[in-house]
Amino acid sequence: MLVRKLVAEFLGTLFLLATVVGSGIMGVALSNGNDGIALLANAAATAAALYVLITILGPISGAHFNPAVTVAMRLRGRLGTADAIAYIVVQVVAAILGVMLAHAMFGQPLLQPGTHARTGAAQCLSEGVATAGLLLTILLGLRSRPTAIPALVAAYIFSAYWFTASTSFANPAVTIARALTQTFAGIRPDGVIGFVVAQFAGMLAALFVARVLGSEEVLESQA
Amino acid sequence: MLVRKLVAEFLGTLFLLATVVGSGIMGVALSNGNDGIALLANAAATAAALYVLITILGPISGAHFNPAVTVAMRLRGRLGTADAIAYIVVQVVAAILGVMLAHAMFGQPLLQPGTHARTGAAQCLSEGVATAGLLLTILLGLRSRPTAIPALVAAYIFSAYWFTASTSFANPAVTIARALTQTFAGIRPDGVIGFVVAQFAGMLAALFVARVLGSEEVLESQA
Amino acid sequence: MLVRKLVAEFLGTLFLLATVVGSGIMGVALSNGNDGIALLANAAATAAALYVLITILGPISGAHFNPAVTVAMRLRGRLGTADAIAYIVVQVVAAILGVMLAHAMFGQPLLQPGTHARTGAAQCLSEGVATAGLLLTILLGLRSRPTAIPALVAAYIFSAYWFTASTSFANPAVTIARALTQTFAGIRPDGVIGFVVAQFAGMLAALFVARVLGSEEVLESQA
Amino acid sequence: MLVRKLVAEFLGTLFLLATVVGSGIMGVALSNGNDGIALLANAAATAAALYVLITILGPISGAHFNPAVTVAMRLRGRLGTADAIAYIVVQVVAAILGVMLAHAMFGQPLLQPGTHARTGAAQCLSEGVATAGLLLTILLGLRSRPTAIPALVAAYIFSAYWFTASTSFANPAVTIARALTQTFAGIRPDGVIGFVVAQFAGMLAALFVARVLGSEEVLESQA
Repeated sequence: MLVRKLVAEFLGTLFLLATVVGSGIMGVALSNGNDGIALLANAAATAAALYVLITILGPISGAHFNPAVTVAMRLRGRLGTADAIAYIVVQVVAAILGVMLAHAMFGQPLLQPGTHARTGAAQCLSEGVATAGLLLTILLGLRSRPTAIPALVAAYIFSAYWFTASTSFANPAVTIARALTQTFAGIRPDGVIGFVVAQFAGMLAALFVARVLGSEEVLESQA
Repeated sequence: MLVRKLVAEFLGTLFLLATVVGSGIMGVALSNGNDGIALLANAAATAAALYVLITILGPISGAHFNPAVTVAMRLRGRLGTADAIAYIVVQVVAAILGVMLAHAMFGQPLLQPGTHARTGAAQCLSEGVATAGLLLTILLGLRSRPTAIPALVAAYIFSAYWFTASTSFANPAVTIARALTQTFAGIRPDGVIGFVVAQFAGMLAALFVARVLGSEEVLESQA
Repeated sequence: MLVRKLVAEFLGTLFLLATVVGSGIMGVALSNGNDGIALLANAAATAAALYVLITILGPISGAHFNPAVTVAMRLRGRLGTADAIAYIVVQVVAAILGVMLAHAMFGQPLLQPGTHARTGAAQCLSEGVATAGLLLTILLGLRSRPTAIPALVAAYIFSAYWFTASTSFANPAVTIARALTQTFAGIRPDGVIGFVVAQFAGMLAALFVARVLGSEEVLESQA
Repeated sequence: MLVRKLVAEFLGTLFLLATVVGSGIMGVALSNGNDGIALLANAAATAAALYVLITILGPISGAHFNPAVTVAMRLRGRLGTADAIAYIVVQVVAAILGVMLAHAMFGQPLLQPGTHARTGAAQCLSEGVATAGLLLTILLGLRSRPTAIPALVAAYIFSAYWFTASTSFANPAVTIARALTQTFAGIRPDGVIGFVVAQFAGMLAALFVARVLGSEEVLESQA
């Protein structure tokens, strides 16, 4: 039932963004200028939320929460074009509302044009690598241990917050929505296009590598 | 056997509050005024305790430790009215004793009227969202992967400590008990009513959303 | 085969103490006087080591690494008196060698009489509560989800490092060995007796509560 | 199919090193000189990446990413000599490229001779212990709970970052590659030989202890 799937995508993306932005605000507020502590809190809170949201909503909608994932699944033939477009529209709307919800919970203006500059080749390379890694995690994880997908995505994103120079947005809907906050997790609007292009490029690279590694064949289960 | 269930609710709520308050005291004592470190410790210790307590006591009493959960389960028909009232009385008493136990372990006065102001619309919105998320985690998790409930609740609460402005009490018994400590985890008594009302409102919202998402039907298992 | 069991107890207790003391040294060395960061590292490293050691050595010896656990298992009839004594001797010897190994890895004197004062009623109450909680985790966990025992003990100890005033030694062999280090994890020798008495008292309390909760009956599996 | 195995070893080792070096750069950049926070981030990001990479690539190549593991598996007869040599060549090349990828993502010179002195008996003892522990984790874990290997290795490495004076390289390919970065995770080239010798010595010790503990027999499953 498509409506139910879209409600699940809405709810998951809403909570994901509320967590990303809200925990960024809280982290900065409490850490006396030590951004290392703020990013530890931000990354761990995001990972914990992803684990929960993918576990509880995965059986309903697949728990994409991410247009790059939805396009990859469309290319793999897992859902139709119309459904994919509906998923993406809902993801972008829910992501923006999630940012607004975080601002409301912290008593801030609901929409704030981002001021955190994130441009240039190193940042875009970071987003390409981050998104490729996310898609490989999902595509190979679906073969090797599907029940672990929530924990795998959570662990991957925690790691990618730290190993990339961009703190791994890895999600076009998240990127657009984070252009609407001036807090820790924000991005200046002029960085959005570069990030989104890099994210889709990383996604395509991951589809290719996953094919080389035979992700579409059934691997012998380790269990 | 109701007595055994009540002992389990008592033990779990007692240890939960001892952990929330005790780890808050320890966190502040060691962190040289950096509350970000204190909240990281507080959130991680609480999550770890929830994982343990729900795993070991869940098979006995359901491991509610929370009147909002008990009322939701009553509304779902999982337990009777008399049992629900007994659960809630035990939860509130055990929560208060848990705060006193934490104070005793740290050599502090056993009861301390809270002085941490937590009032206003943003704080109440935070509690409503926090409790709605907790109930959705439980209600949808029971369908999608019941064996993961301890890990799901732990991960959710870790995340909600950070993404809400109130650090996510999400539990009326916890709220009442935390009005009796002046430490990091405390709340000034005038904030209690607003929090409790917001928590029950969030719980009712979650019941509605869970129904829309079909949480009462059996989803296909991902496992 | 008793010899193999004793090798497992030796190896596990050795690595456990090397982790507790070594990560304490490293934590203090890197944290610029912020003991909150040092205890986060110390607690997380200890929990991670416990998860590993109990998983890999549990099938061989039961992975006690702790005289309070061995005595409890003896009282439950899980092993004989002679074996229990052999376990405890090996645990104490291995714990001391583990402290020496940590000192050697950090280029410090191998034995150092502890100078960290840990005495008084609040500290002993902490150890009693910490050990009771540990034993309840094990005894109830063995009924509710035995495969989760490594994760349960790890999570419990992480939590108890923070919610007790003593940072939860909860283990007589660990207490004796930690009297031989002047580093972060140490204890002044005059505190050892009080801790050990409180630990065994907590263990007996846990055996009683576990009996009330029917830990010796087979609970219905949640899985 | 050997090619696919080598692609998996390449990809895993590449991402592992990008994570180790990248998260070290980010940790130092954000932590205002508090290396405790930087190492917490570095260790947690590395553990999370190991959990993911071993889960998704283990069914393809065994997910060694480490010449010490490959030699141990060769000695156990799990793969042939030619394959082992191919694995090791790929691991070293991929490790170096992973360091370069991290540098590129952070806009730094691609190759930088390491300047972090890590020599002497205490450091080498640390590497021997660290590698012995890693191999025991793998060899005994394969018997006691093979599906937990990704979580076991991740937890072990997190712990070993903290309990050893060397922050536990425990991997000859990683050691060589980390001689090519001047960042937090680097090692001065004159320390490489001592580390590698100690790592292989630790590996051999682990093979011996694992044999004593009967790791080659089938243990009764705890599950």
